[in-house]
Amino acid sequence: MTMPRIAHRVRDIAPFHVMAILARARELEAAGRSIIHLEIGEPDFPTPQPIIDAGIQALQRGDLHYTPALGLPALRACIADYYASQYGVTVDAQRIVVTPGASGALLLALGLLAEPSDQIMLADPGYPCNRHFARFIEAQTLAVPVDADSAYQLTPTLVEHHWTPDVKVVLLASPSNPTGSVVPDADVRAIASLCAARGAYLVVDEIYHGLIYEGNYQTALAHSDQVFVVNSFSKYFQMTGWRLGWLVAPDWAMTALDRLAQNLFLAASTPAQLAAIAAFEPTCIALLESRKAELKTRRDYLATHLMELGFGLPVMPQGAFYLYADCSRFTQDSFEFARMLLEETGVAITPGRDFGTHKANQYLRFAYTTSLPNLESAIYRLKQKLG
Amino acid sequence: MTMPRIAHRVRDIAPFHVMAILARARELEAAGRSIIHLEIGEPDFPTPQPIIDAGIQALQRGDLHYTPALGLPALRACIADYYASQYGVTVDAQRIVVTPGASGALLLALGLLAEPSDQIMLADPGYPCNRHFARFIEAQTLAVPVDADSAYQLTPTLVEHHWTPDVKVVLLASPSNPTGSVVPDADVRAIASLCAARGAYLVVDEIYHGLIYEGNYQTALAHSDQVFVVNSFSKYFQMTGWRLGWLVAPDWAMTALDRLAQNLFLAASTPAQLAAIAAFEPTCIALLESRKAELKTRRDYLATHLMELGFGLPVMPQGAFYLYADCSRFTQDSFEFARMLLEETGVAITPGRDFGTHKANQYLRFAYTTSLPNLESAIYRLKQKLG
Repeated sequence: MTMPRIAHRVRDIAPFHVMAILARARELEAAGRSIIHLEIGEPDFPTPQPIIDAGIQALQRGDLHYTPALGLPALRACIADYYASQYGVTVDAQRIVVTPGASGALLLALGLLAEPSDQIMLADPGYPCNRHFARFIEAQTLAVPVDADSAYQLTPTLVEHHWTPDVKVVLLASPSNPTGSVVPDADVRAIASLCAARGAYLVVDEIYHGLIYEGNYQTALAHSDQVFVVNSFSKYFQMTGWRLGWLVAPDWAMTALDRLAQNLFLAASTPAQLAAIAAFEPTCIALLESRKAELKTRRDYLATHLMELGFGLPVMPQGAFYLYADCSRFTQDSFEFARMLLEETGVAITPGRDFGTHKANQYLRFAYTTSLPNLESAIYRLKQKLG
Repeated sequence: MTMPRIAHRVRDIAPFHVMAILARARELEAAGRSIIHLEIGEPDFPTPQPIIDAGIQALQRGDLHYTPALGLPALRACIADYYASQYGVTVDAQRIVVTPGASGALLLALGLLAEPSDQIMLADPGYPCNRHFARFIEAQTLAVPVDADSAYQLTPTLVEHHWTPDVKVVLLASPSNPTGSVVPDADVRAIASLCAARGAYLVVDEIYHGLIYEGNYQTALAHSDQVFVVNSFSKYFQMTGWRLGWLVAPDWAMTALDRLAQNLFLAASTPAQLAAIAAFEPTCIALLESRKAELKTRRDYLATHLMELGFGLPVMPQGAFYLYADCSRFTQDSFEFARMLLEETGVAITPGRDFGTHKANQYLRFAYTTSLPNLESAIYRLKQKLG
């Protein structure tokens, strides 16, 4: 028998380096060490009670068959209403696909748009799964290095400068993981126009858009009905484990997306969809807004104290729950630095190299997905070591 | 602006023709007509109460964060135990990935194994999503026409006869959708050996394996620890809308599958995973076995009466909940025939062309996913028209 051989598309998916950090953190915890987790990209809040209650009622009613591939009509209507109430933007519910997590939405959008020879332009640093989705469907990634001077985001100038005839999709994430920075409305609008003029498509990841702490930012849907917008019930709505997201797409794409969703997923989880309807109730939104205020408090605390310690935060992130901090004052190898900090202080942090290659060795991503007392304790420990 | 253009991989996905039947059936129902649905590939039974109760308890406890990408360890252990109790086969829980539906498992397995230049050999007729998964990842499909003489299944002889140097995966479905036929153990074993000898991999869809009404058939895992086996909580366990399935893979594949699952899905739905643990409790299995007995009664009734009406069933299907009936005595165009039967008798049936091209125009798939009285009524109506 020949040696097993896995396909190149899977061999090319780099493991998340944070998994090594996490595994070591679990080992240390098992050995009795206290570990503060600033590496976890999942909010620590439980799913809001109104959503859980709606889920329980749905299970009690017991009709848990497949939904249509595009999602429950009632949930699609709620999402459309959310765009109206939150952004004042009219989005036809028929343009919304409910997906198994934002992952499903990204897979649908990229699968729909990009041929194997096409390039998907995205920012480095960025969410690593994006380039892996592209690789999975045999499409190409064009990673554009971005720095603090553009708030770690693509700009119209950068898009134009790096354009090639093979670019079919430009992918923005606003706010971005890992940087938390937001793309200004004018830039989204300009990049959307640029894409339209060149026969390419703009896909905007707005997974963290509900978690923007200051400034008024529009959804990309306000600027064009030709953009693809990905969103999620995981982050703002704190339904992580339920695995539910959505995609808003142009009219002309819906028949094809329906067919693709039918084949790839059949549909998103019915209990999750039924529960998610309650996410838009005023009491639930009020709870989510109070949690968002708490996240802002954490951000302010952590940002201030990391800068005091000597970490660089040239751009104050407006959203998400991450700080992408420059640690070049301490190290030229942020992965080794993260390992050292874990061993010596018990603080777990994600190394920059999980988000790309551009200057990755001088950055760390701190996630403030843990309580303020834990953040205080982390700062205390880091100060002991670095202060 | 240029005209919108979707990628070839999506353009090549044929719509399900049954959707036209279903849409028309809904129209007729809206207009007051009574329709009997024999086109639906989803069991009519509700999710068993023990599973719903476990789901409610999980929601009440409220810990609904992401699970590991490979699934909840407790659920993976239950699935391993199920192979021991049901088949007497030892499967290490470490070889099990819990997936968002069997769809997720098929996407993982094919994505892991097949390069774009590789061929995936499968039977025509067969489950249409399989060739669409292959197309999605830019791999090739080698559809082998199969007939009643091989119970509509691939055989070692057929596999050998159609082999090309590009075959990297052979995909069996046992029982098959749409034919309900089962691959004999000896054939599974021989095809597994054949694949191993030629550096290819056998993937076996056992989604309907819990619904085999007679005969003793082993899981493919009994024959080799190198096969990939896909299964589902949708059919035997009747958790359709929850979207939960699993993949059993060889040891060497697990690290890569973990990485791929992390990137494609993050994880399967946590409430679904917590609920599914109860699926293996003796009271739940007892309920499922009584429902299986009811499905057998339906199969026997429908098969007998369809043959009396003049439909051909040269192979009595041992499993699933489908009869793939030859209607060439009535028509040379089963799609038009299905449309006519819907209009004139109110019985909705899936046309053969949804399952491939080989003799598709002379077959219909009848799903016995509705009650015995409904089946009696369908037979009565068909007899009025055809008898």
